[in-house]
Amino acid sequence: MIDIREVGPRDGLQVESPLTVEQRIEFIQCLIAAGVNHIEIASFMRDDLVPSMAGAEQVVAGVPARAGLTRTGLVANTKGAKRALACGLDEVTITVSLSETYSQKNTGKSRREALTTTGEILNCIDAKIPTDVVISCAFGSPYADVSMQHDLLKFVDEFRGLGCDRITLADTTGEATPRLIREALALVGTDVGLHLHETRGTGLVNAIAGLEAGVRRFDCSLGGIGGSPFANGAAGNVATETLVFLLHDLGYQTSIDLDKLLAVAPLLSQMIGHRLPSALAHLH
Amino acid sequence: MIDIREVGPRDGLQVESPLTVEQRIEFIQCLIAAGVNHIEIASFMRDDLVPSMAGAEQVVAGVPARAGLTRTGLVANTKGAKRALACGLDEVTITVSLSETYSQKNTGKSRREALTTTGEILNCIDAKIPTDVVISCAFGSPYADVSMQHDLLKFVDEFRGLGCDRITLADTTGEATPRLIREALALVGTDVGLHLHETRGTGLVNAIAGLEAGVRRFDCSLGGIGGSPFANGAAGNVATETLVFLLHDLGYQTSIDLDKLLAVAPLLSQMIGHRLPSALAHLH
Repeated sequence: MIDIREVGPRDGLQVESPLTVEQRIEFIQCLIAAGVNHIEIASFMRDDLVPSMAGAEQVVAGVPARAGLTRTGLVANTKGAKRALACGLDEVTITVSLSETYSQKNTGKSRREALTTTGEILNCIDAKIPTDVVISCAFGSPYADVSMQHDLLKFVDEFRGLGCDRITLADTTGEATPRLIREALALVGTDVGLHLHETRGTGLVNAIAGLEAGVRRFDCSLGGIGGSPFANGAAGNVATETLVFLLHDLGYQTSIDLDKLLAVAPLLSQMIGHRLPSALAHLH
Repeated sequence: MIDIREVGPRDGLQVESPLTVEQRIEFIQCLIAAGVNHIEIASFMRDDLVPSMAGAEQVVAGVPARAGLTRTGLVANTKGAKRALACGLDEVTITVSLSETYSQKNTGKSRREALTTTGEILNCIDAKIPTDVVISCAFGSPYADVSMQHDLLKFVDEFRGLGCDRITLADTTGEATPRLIREALALVGTDVGLHLHETRGTGLVNAIAGLEAGVRRFDCSLGGIGGSPFANGAAGNVATETLVFLLHDLGYQTSIDLDKLLAVAPLLSQMIGHRLPSALAHLH
């Protein structure tokens, strides 16, 4: 069974014009009805800083806990962690970056400060729910300040040492190739998640390379939404439906009913007001 | 060395609003300047039937023969074959379909009639230049009338028996998956070309599956143009630049200078009047 974590409601919608809480709940419930059992549904930032993710508690309240469903939320500090715990979330993700420059630009924190903050978050969570540290720019960065071979394993080990439950390697800016995927997995092992983007149109190829190397956890988004707000969303996440289509064809199982998932695509497209990047989303 | 056959000037531009002969020559010359050494530059149909490909002889005249360059043209009958020979083309492609329904719809001919016509074309060419039979719907068709396991090898062998020099397997309607690619190659061998589309967003994944199985010839188009005239060109060919980027990263050689090729993308986009489907084309 391949673990497909749908990140559309968070990583996807974050770069879109804000939807209402009700729309986001409807989208998430449609995903659940299609068999998606692992979903990043919220982000516990300040509503004024990330308006598209405002009302996290209301979204979580609108998607009650149920057996077999993992509702994930992104937290950036202990305040967010407390909010996530208080509303009964099932898993938290914490994003850090292997690139010093990207870390500074994206969060205003150095890699060292991010490590400290992550330790505080993990202490706050206190193993009450699973924690996943998502390492952005894991395969390189546009600032040429990442040496994957030299830095990645050390960085991963620091977070493992802090006691996080999972590590996810993220190709935030589209640097990964099948070669780099294999090299990264040789360094840190295949018990990681992969969070890949189509910045160069190579996200799906990289996902399949990871699959063939033994990875069993993937982040993706319905329709391939997300990423930087380029026209056409070309830099979005790997499209859930395309990855699931290939996985099923290759004989792997997921929790997802592909036909039902594809039926959700028009609703999503209507909600965000533009065409979805994924080709497969338009064939049904 | 991987043989990259750029089909943008034919398979790509065919579905666009017609460019002038001069524009098409300029596009082709830019490709050559970027190191592309195998290009489908023309189609010898009736100008009134395919206006976007009108003036084939003028295009060929504007792209003179040179050592190391293979200028390819599509022919559909002996009349086209004679024209291709007369203007000094280097290679012809002949398209047939494994799907009876697709064959009838696309050409008005049955598979049996297409075999006869191909024999006539090959006789006319008389081994003066290489011939490549492109088998469309090789991996399946939307009409569910193709049994790849049962029919493909027999079909390929009939054309090999007629004396064509090459076979290319085309995924005209986006049915292929890595599994089907591997199954097809197990049937007919890896000494074939692959002509893959992004109808389901899986073209590049399929190309890499073919590469790993041993295929060394690929059709693709700059910017991923071509295919059915869907919005955004989502059903276009595998993008040349993305495949070349991955091939070079994996240590394979091509004739192409990737940076120079990417520099041609804005010109192409301007000529056809819309954004190119490929993500990589927009990063430079």
